[in-house]
Amino acid sequence: MSATHPDRPEEQPGRIMSGEMAEQPAVLRRILDEGAPRIREIAEQVAARNPRFVLLTARGTSDNAALYAKYLLEIRLGKPCGLTSMSTTTAYGARPDLTDVLVITVSQSGGSPDLVASAEAARAAGAITVAVTNNSDSPLAKVSEFHIDVLAGPEKALPATKTYTAELLALYLFVEGLRGGDGAAAKVLPELARQTLGRGAEVKALAGRYRFAERMVLTSRGYGYPTAKEAALKLMETSYIPALSYSGADLLHGPLAMVDNISPVIAIVTDGKGGEALQPVLDRLKDRGADLVVIGGREQVDAASAGFALPTADVPEELQPILEILPLQMLAYEVTIARGQDPDAPRALAKVTRTH
Amino acid sequence: MSATHPDRPEEQPGRIMSGEMAEQPAVLRRILDEGAPRIREIAEQVAARNPRFVLLTARGTSDNAALYAKYLLEIRLGKPCGLTSMSTTTAYGARPDLTDVLVITVSQSGGSPDLVASAEAARAAGAITVAVTNNSDSPLAKVSEFHIDVLAGPEKALPATKTYTAELLALYLFVEGLRGGDGAAAKVLPELARQTLGRGAEVKALAGRYRFAERMVLTSRGYGYPTAKEAALKLMETSYIPALSYSGADLLHGPLAMVDNISPVIAIVTDGKGGEALQPVLDRLKDRGADLVVIGGREQVDAASAGFALPTADVPEELQPILEILPLQMLAYEVTIARGQDPDAPRALAKVTRTH
Repeated sequence: MSATHPDRPEEQPGRIMSGEMAEQPAVLRRILDEGAPRIREIAEQVAARNPRFVLLTARGTSDNAALYAKYLLEIRLGKPCGLTSMSTTTAYGARPDLTDVLVITVSQSGGSPDLVASAEAARAAGAITVAVTNNSDSPLAKVSEFHIDVLAGPEKALPATKTYTAELLALYLFVEGLRGGDGAAAKVLPELARQTLGRGAEVKALAGRYRFAERMVLTSRGYGYPTAKEAALKLMETSYIPALSYSGADLLHGPLAMVDNISPVIAIVTDGKGGEALQPVLDRLKDRGADLVVIGGREQVDAASAGFALPTADVPEELQPILEILPLQMLAYEVTIARGQDPDAPRALAKVTRTH
Repeated sequence: MSATHPDRPEEQPGRIMSGEMAEQPAVLRRILDEGAPRIREIAEQVAARNPRFVLLTARGTSDNAALYAKYLLEIRLGKPCGLTSMSTTTAYGARPDLTDVLVITVSQSGGSPDLVASAEAARAAGAITVAVTNNSDSPLAKVSEFHIDVLAGPEKALPATKTYTAELLALYLFVEGLRGGDGAAAKVLPELARQTLGRGAEVKALAGRYRFAERMVLTSRGYGYPTAKEAALKLMETSYIPALSYSGADLLHGPLAMVDNISPVIAIVTDGKGGEALQPVLDRLKDRGADLVVIGGREQVDAASAGFALPTADVPEELQPILEILPLQMLAYEVTIARGQDPDAPRALAKVTRTH
């Protein structure tokens, strides 16, 4: 049973996080209606300079959004890409020649000093710099040549939710813009996100099986892999369950030893090539008797121990991550409530708040 | 107490893994004596073609070696770098233009079909391709333009140990060669590795504190970060303890909520800029009362709950990872023995062996 304070709704655990999760359909619509023209304009200017290589810089949740962009850039744009190891610049002072390199820095706040320093160094080294943030007045927005505002409104919960899906959609529109597309396929997302978020009872039922879990494994391949990483981060920072994420291929290389009927597995099975490539991993997990919960299409869910069927029948694979993460955010929230903890107050940061 | 079979040494748990760990000083010496000239030759040929970017492709343990090379390439060579998301090529058929791009594929066996396909596709797309493997007859060695043999001899234990340090040293010599250096600083490693591996009793004492651990966190920054990732993988695939690895900066972004006096932390503190950048994270962990074990210099070890002091006083920071991993390999071995399991027979793969 979840802990609630019916007389004091302002003290209900997780109310900030759940409020922000619920805003996601509106945020996605705002990006499509108000943000898209400016994103396309920036994309046109960047495309005209024909970058050869793309580097993405971010941390935490935004790093998972950056990884999603890496898949888009490699698959849909055909550009070689890398995720920055930030300390090479900030701690070791590396100054690579970044002529013809597009450097995209993703950060909710746009305020992290090392990200700002890293973007500044990249610009000085000749890179085309694009910042993707939720704050157009942020230092990161200011030191970058271009700024994409994800328009998510202030995010107060410690676990980031609405800024993650906002970053994904903004990055999708940007990469579509780089290849001269209009991103019209994304128009279905706000309504599908609304439908998905309305299925809280299903997620609450799923959460029951993790109430006493001592660890969890998340896996996917291709476009769904950033979802697996972000879901693991969300579960850890709210419920403190050690949640390990692996690409399906890496899981078979060793960590599979850790998976059995006491280590539950959540697989994100995108409807497309990523899901197909994951199939041998799913078969292997079933052979081992793993408790396998699938986030994906109806057929995949029915073949697993349990799951959450996404309304992705008419959604291109590259857009499915924007929906996939929603039931997993809700799951992190519900598991945390079921364990008697407060998703709004992760331990590590609560202490800082108390010292005010 | 560890399970042993004094009458049947051939059945002693972990004897294959411990035998291969013990070979590491000899393997390092072989690379320096026999492998280095050919590595320098390849490096000269590659450097003459002046690659603009570097992509690294690998999985599992070799992926951690590739990450080490990424730090070397960014810091010491000043080249922008990325780790490949392999499925973009193998599952999604992405064909980026790789003219002027150096693609390094690292694999112990050189036989994984997706790595071979990925290297072939890179070569067809114009890349300079270098394979780093432990088998010069492997398909990966054959499809690549250049092959660096890590000369570790057959590796039979399922947890890779000697091929990891061999890959690190071969990659170090290659990057030094790219910048016109001779890698002479590495000459001290075989003897220091021998001294380190001789301190098994210290590691066995450390292992006691993890016998009943339900999870572990490993952290580092800079050159030590690949060590944290590789140690986590080693601990998981032998002992099945969920071991999570984070760069120190990412740890502060959320997963810190999971760390308290029941989640032990192992920090790899390199003697140099990486260790300096990690200092605020170590301070924060101490504030939270974390059980902090340090692998690093004597002073850092003395300031922690416990640790293993490395003989790195005269070793440049970029070479320290080759020593840092040794006590962590031994720790994975000892923790597994202490838990009554066999490091040579991880569950997931034992099953396959039995079906012979």
